[in-house]
Amino acid sequence: MSKQPRTAITPTRADDFPEWYQQVIKAADMAENSPVRGCMIIKPYGFAVWENMQRIFDGMIKDAGVQNAYFPLLIPLSFIAREAEHVDGFAKECAVVTHHRLESGEDGLVPAGKLEEPYVVRPTSETIIGDSMARWIQSYRDLPLKLNQWCNVMRWEMRTRLFLRTSEFLWQEGHNAFETAEDAREDALKMLEAYRAFVEDNLALSVFTGEKTADERFPGAIATYTIEAIMQDGKALQAGTSHDLGQNFAKSIGIKFQARDGSEQFAHTTSWGISTRLIGGMIMIHGDDDGMIMPPRVAPQQIVILPVTKDEESEAKVLPFADKLAAQMKQKGLRVHVDKREMRTPDKMWDAVKKGIPLRVEIGAREVDDGEVTFVRRDLGKASKETVPVELFIERMERILDNIHDNMLARSKSFREDHTFNGSTVTDIDDFFAKESAGLIKVPVSLLSDPKLEEIMKKYALSTRCMPFADNGEKVLIGKAY
Amino acid sequence: MSKQPRTAITPTRADDFPEWYQQVIKAADMAENSPVRGCMIIKPYGFAVWENMQRIFDGMIKDAGVQNAYFPLLIPLSFIAREAEHVDGFAKECAVVTHHRLESGEDGLVPAGKLEEPYVVRPTSETIIGDSMARWIQSYRDLPLKLNQWCNVMRWEMRTRLFLRTSEFLWQEGHNAFETAEDAREDALKMLEAYRAFVEDNLALSVFTGEKTADERFPGAIATYTIEAIMQDGKALQAGTSHDLGQNFAKSIGIKFQARDGSEQFAHTTSWGISTRLIGGMIMIHGDDDGMIMPPRVAPQQIVILPVTKDEESEAKVLPFADKLAAQMKQKGLRVHVDKREMRTPDKMWDAVKKGIPLRVEIGAREVDDGEVTFVRRDLGKASKETVPVELFIERMERILDNIHDNMLARSKSFREDHTFNGSTVTDIDDFFAKESAGLIKVPVSLLSDPKLEEIMKKYALSTRCMPFADNGEKVLIGKAY
Repeated sequence: MSKQPRTAITPTRADDFPEWYQQVIKAADMAENSPVRGCMIIKPYGFAVWENMQRIFDGMIKDAGVQNAYFPLLIPLSFIAREAEHVDGFAKECAVVTHHRLESGEDGLVPAGKLEEPYVVRPTSETIIGDSMARWIQSYRDLPLKLNQWCNVMRWEMRTRLFLRTSEFLWQEGHNAFETAEDAREDALKMLEAYRAFVEDNLALSVFTGEKTADERFPGAIATYTIEAIMQDGKALQAGTSHDLGQNFAKSIGIKFQARDGSEQFAHTTSWGISTRLIGGMIMIHGDDDGMIMPPRVAPQQIVILPVTKDEESEAKVLPFADKLAAQMKQKGLRVHVDKREMRTPDKMWDAVKKGIPLRVEIGAREVDDGEVTFVRRDLGKASKETVPVELFIERMERILDNIHDNMLARSKSFREDHTFNGSTVTDIDDFFAKESAGLIKVPVSLLSDPKLEEIMKKYALSTRCMPFADNGEKVLIGKAY
Repeated sequence: MSKQPRTAITPTRADDFPEWYQQVIKAADMAENSPVRGCMIIKPYGFAVWENMQRIFDGMIKDAGVQNAYFPLLIPLSFIAREAEHVDGFAKECAVVTHHRLESGEDGLVPAGKLEEPYVVRPTSETIIGDSMARWIQSYRDLPLKLNQWCNVMRWEMRTRLFLRTSEFLWQEGHNAFETAEDAREDALKMLEAYRAFVEDNLALSVFTGEKTADERFPGAIATYTIEAIMQDGKALQAGTSHDLGQNFAKSIGIKFQARDGSEQFAHTTSWGISTRLIGGMIMIHGDDDGMIMPPRVAPQQIVILPVTKDEESEAKVLPFADKLAAQMKQKGLRVHVDKREMRTPDKMWDAVKKGIPLRVEIGAREVDDGEVTFVRRDLGKASKETVPVELFIERMERILDNIHDNMLARSKSFREDHTFNGSTVTDIDDFFAKESAGLIKVPVSLLSDPKLEEIMKKYALSTRCMPFADNGEKVLIGKAY
């Protein structure tokens, strides 16, 4: 048996990627399974990531003229049934509310007060928001109408995985309405571009942008655009989608307006969403065998300061120095945490590593005497350890965080490129996955009509991920996916 | 028939207060009823108020060491049943999820996939969060644990009113756990004080703070503290509550920890919440017969600029001036809106009035020539109209907004004081409400044990509102309430 290097996470990514993923979440204290079937509890350290994402993306959509609002959690059955493809897409995974009170029965509490019409807990809100749009939109002057809500949604899942696939998740769902088909298509593409910019600039995720094939479209859409990422095990993750709904929902719900020429027209609508699933993606792209690596711009803590003290004397020296440094960082708008817990320094150090805090600063009595700090970058590890004068560090720390971001994004981009392969026949696809290759294969879209394709897709549980814009829609990416 | 002054809202407050309330919400475009029984749609202008409240209060609780997290929407029936008083309090108003998919039946879609154990949509989360606390708390070192979530909750209501009482509403629910009874009581009082400060400093609502009588306590609490406001029709509104849950939930759920002396103890917990109901309170305290008056610190728009133009020439002059002024305001962190809609100026003016925008600035060609602006305060109306040099206005505008806040708070305080009366017997209460007096009556707590009290309370549909701290718990406030 060969001696393995010690890692903070067991198993390693190479040994068992799915189990490594669960253990990273546990070690970083981000989320856990709940006693409610398929639902997760997002713990404070995980939720803080979502709050940072929300704050940043909310600013982006407000700049794009989108207004936030709030629509009911429950959707009448008759609403969800309005768009035929839509209801087919969601009927199998709807939580249904059928009663409105509880009564004491023989075996304890039982549902009572049966509803005349049951409701589903929203799996998505096209139909209920469309119903409002139909009332709010009268004339072309009311268009465009751009609405968004940050909320919880529920899709009953049989096999769940924290963040990636849970029965309840948090997301934003945008719902826009336009005068023309061109406006809607342009908007759907614009929101996809917003997602690409958001995940690259803030989560350091490099993604493909492209259109979904017909069978992977959102139920009821005429086109679905997607950002797709590759995880470290070579599987794809759909990280955000933007749908051009054409007039499908407008016609089935009755979203009509008086056009500039006086005629009555149906609106053209779009919808677009990103969710807490992105946190799962961040973990599977950035994490290593020592745990999470947080992209600095959404990291709950960007810098952790570890005061290294032996006795009361060194404490009296180190703590005020650490507090002053933290105050200077906060003044620059950085999220910093001074870890003063009564705990061994190596334990604190490993905790910071597992939580993926981008920059770790260690201060001992010697550092105070010399007016210096020692820091380590999480993305580069021990090799990046440096001791520098405190003034120099303060001057450089924002640049260091930017460098960490840039490095993580560059890594994610190379990984994506290195794990995307080209093929030209169905046999190429078969060969690629027969070798258990990690990654996606890109083939001509003409293969979609090849009768042998379906069998190979089933054989390896593959799906089409998108037709990348970069290839002018001439190629299609195929692979395994989360 | 006497000639009435024209008001923007029909009916007036004096004519029909409940209908006036609905019409103010409609005129300000804040919310509307949805096709889902008892649920509201919060429209962008109303939702922006909630976003401002969230941002401010979230900062306050984070400063108090509270961490945000997210717990499941659904609660197993067995959980809600754990605390006997608690389930009694909520069983009559629970939305119950019994199925997890839909099937096509003879009459269309029907619920299918019956769940073994039904779930209720959370009416509040003590039981499900308590279940996590029981796992997360092991030792006194894990205490205090302070958690909060911003979320939707559902309590099935038969008679609903926008913002004030709806089947679904948005709120924050804080759940804290402590080592000792004293710590928990202190925390419950501290969070109540946070609510008082929050609503006075930001919503300009003057409130009573006090303890609820036993029969008005939160189901399962040992003490409920409340902030109570008086609406312009003299009815009370419970605006926020903080509960000392003692060890009731800890014992029924099993939230135990190893104490400093090595013994095993049950934790002492608290919970505390404010909701979108506060928006209803703001309307009923501040609004007038011309519509809403927004407290400046949570107003979606603090200042509206109306460019007054007759032709293209004046437009070319006025619009750049207005935009430059708006940019200067934004730079100071103010929320400003330039109303450039193609609409008559008086219509825009009335729209700003009905929406309650605190400060309205009008700019015509003459103002541009003279380097002046004309402004009107919404709280004081036409009488406050002033034309001043633009530099002076820029220098003063933040102070003016503060003055508006102070004036609204002072009004709310005088109104509350002027509508609180003293009594000493049950007959005093009878006399007070027989005269259809608007307001609350404060009587000695000893009357609570008077056998004649119940009859009088029923006769006028009264309830005890609180035992104000200001009276050292020796008095109890009684009145009608929302």
